[in-house]
Amino acid sequence: MKFTGRNISVSPTAKIADSARIGDGSTIYDNVVIDEGVVIGNDCVIGEPQSSYYENADYVNPATRIGCDSLIRSHSIIYSDVNVGAGFSCGHRVTIREGSRFGVHCRLGTNGDVQANIEVGDHCWFHSGVFLAAGTVVGDFVLVYPHVIMLDDKMPPSRDLHPVTISDYAQIGAGACVTPGVKVKSHALVGSGAVVTKDVAEYTCVVGNPAKHVKDVRDMKLEDGSPAYPWPYRFDRGMPWEGLGFDEWKRQQK
Amino acid sequence: MKFTGRNISVSPTAKIADSARIGDGSTIYDNVVIDEGVVIGNDCVIGEPQSSYYENADYVNPATRIGCDSLIRSHSIIYSDVNVGAGFSCGHRVTIREGSRFGVHCRLGTNGDVQANIEVGDHCWFHSGVFLAAGTVVGDFVLVYPHVIMLDDKMPPSRDLHPVTISDYAQIGAGACVTPGVKVKSHALVGSGAVVTKDVAEYTCVVGNPAKHVKDVRDMKLEDGSPAYPWPYRFDRGMPWEGLGFDEWKRQQK
Amino acid sequence: MKFTGRNISVSPTAKIADSARIGDGSTIYDNVVIDEGVVIGNDCVIGEPQSSYYENADYVNPATRIGCDSLIRSHSIIYSDVNVGAGFSCGHRVTIREGSRFGVHCRLGTNGDVQANIEVGDHCWFHSGVFLAAGTVVGDFVLVYPHVIMLDDKMPPSRDLHPVTISDYAQIGAGACVTPGVKVKSHALVGSGAVVTKDVAEYTCVVGNPAKHVKDVRDMKLEDGSPAYPWPYRFDRGMPWEGLGFDEWKRQQK
Repeated sequence: MKFTGRNISVSPTAKIADSARIGDGSTIYDNVVIDEGVVIGNDCVIGEPQSSYYENADYVNPATRIGCDSLIRSHSIIYSDVNVGAGFSCGHRVTIREGSRFGVHCRLGTNGDVQANIEVGDHCWFHSGVFLAAGTVVGDFVLVYPHVIMLDDKMPPSRDLHPVTISDYAQIGAGACVTPGVKVKSHALVGSGAVVTKDVAEYTCVVGNPAKHVKDVRDMKLEDGSPAYPWPYRFDRGMPWEGLGFDEWKRQQK
Repeated sequence: MKFTGRNISVSPTAKIADSARIGDGSTIYDNVVIDEGVVIGNDCVIGEPQSSYYENADYVNPATRIGCDSLIRSHSIIYSDVNVGAGFSCGHRVTIREGSRFGVHCRLGTNGDVQANIEVGDHCWFHSGVFLAAGTVVGDFVLVYPHVIMLDDKMPPSRDLHPVTISDYAQIGAGACVTPGVKVKSHALVGSGAVVTKDVAEYTCVVGNPAKHVKDVRDMKLEDGSPAYPWPYRFDRGMPWEGLGFDEWKRQQK
Repeated sequence: MKFTGRNISVSPTAKIADSARIGDGSTIYDNVVIDEGVVIGNDCVIGEPQSSYYENADYVNPATRIGCDSLIRSHSIIYSDVNVGAGFSCGHRVTIREGSRFGVHCRLGTNGDVQANIEVGDHCWFHSGVFLAAGTVVGDFVLVYPHVIMLDDKMPPSRDLHPVTISDYAQIGAGACVTPGVKVKSHALVGSGAVVTKDVAEYTCVVGNPAKHVKDVRDMKLEDGSPAYPWPYRFDRGMPWEGLGFDEWKRQQK
């Protein structure tokens, strides 16, 4: 029943690959490129024009690209000047504002709200309801759990923004709030509901409001007594080291 | 102006009762049953196909049922293999993933995000913006206030999930975060903004981050000095003991 | 590509100014007034009927007004009996329930969820994902950051509500929870992630869970050593004292 072509609006300047499928009720604006194998769900907007569109008769929509084999679930709104890499997958009703970039194989859960000019690396997973303030910088293999918020204004209101930076393999627990300018370093773990007001060193677990250091993640054990972290040694589903092992994969990267 | 039949798409295998009304722009997928008296708002999706639909040409949509007299407000997405009981009512833009079950007379507020395989009893009310992780188990007469999140992964990332369990008559305050595996027992009260990391005993009120026991709810008084809890003795609007009294109703249940 | 008139439904009793533009797929219900210069995005609902509409054949939709030059972004739902002043601007998918009032030049971010009977003054900015419980009262020039929740039920469940009151120039940090009945006074600053359980005095900064007084905002400095607060002396973008100075503007108000 999907992809019946009902009520679709596609700009003549959009380029849609032959194997891409566009859901009913979706709108594809000017200068959007949709690569091979992409699925756009129903009632999506791709290449949403920016604010000046409403006032400026000469507005030209900047280029937008949806990488190959991406899946954009229904009711999502992706602004113009967004670039998402191959294998991107998102839930329903996400919003991604202009100037934002995602690397390959990222996921963004239902209701995710990504503000302008975000830079995300490869293989990052953002669960449902995440809010990323403008300019947030996220490395590779970062895992962000539901309803996390990352901020950018230290002394509000202000035009002088201090975005958050999250490094490779870090994890941010559900409901956590990462305050402006904070750097969460590689392999760090922020506990659920934490309010992070200071930088978090690598391999460090912090919890609470304000968040405090509680342990080195390398001392955390699974129920069977084996080490829980660094997590890439025990979790590979959907990761490039799946079936290969993390060390072997790293060796191959060099 | 509603229910004009404009732009509705209904699968030939869907069964829609004569007295049900379907809003403009809504889509009803294969193998959905909509019972008598149901109202579906505009731009809803009922029986949304699961992920394998996108790759599998032989995909068969599992059965979905919307119980009689339910009201599904606009822009909501209910996946296939969901079963909501009679008198269900939801706000706008809720998402309910596959395998989830709601008993009779439940409510789910605007923007609610229910993941897969949730089990909810009867007469539970979830206010706006609630997130329930996969596998969450909720009893009867549970009241969950706005923007609560309930989680499932103790040592992320992991495939070994530990869902939350909430027992009958418990209440979870707005903005609270219930961490994986936690059991909140009968008549307990979790304060607004609490981060619950341990089980909460019955009739217990907890607050803070991490949440700590502050009192027995049976010691909490209303402004007029009368006992506030257990709440069914003083609140009956929309409950089956309305106009009857909680004790009398319980007697009739036996 | 916008405003092509595709699939729009407008009640014969709605009054739409000549210069207003209505996006594709939007529905304008009975007794809505849309003033000059308004832009309604795609797939919006303006004047959404209230609950009794579903049962009552004689339902008459109360009047709704969208003030001049307002911008309502796509997928937003504004109930009947809402009145938003001139220059209102909102993100995508906001919901504003019946009986709510906004003054002039207010902003409400993406996914904002405004319950019934809210009173908001002029020039208030609510960022993404804010939840305002029924009856919340907000003054002028109030700044509310992402994912803030404001509540109304002190001893739940209850029919006796205690809404929050926020006074002029106050700021509520991202992810904060303001519990029922709390008054946040003029120029106060609530920190990110705070759970506010008591009134906050004017010019006071509170943080934590529960929120505690940490300093007078007038003692807070910017990086260059100049005072950060009261903020109207250093921030004027979009404010009526832009280019004029706060003192001069106040003088002109008298």
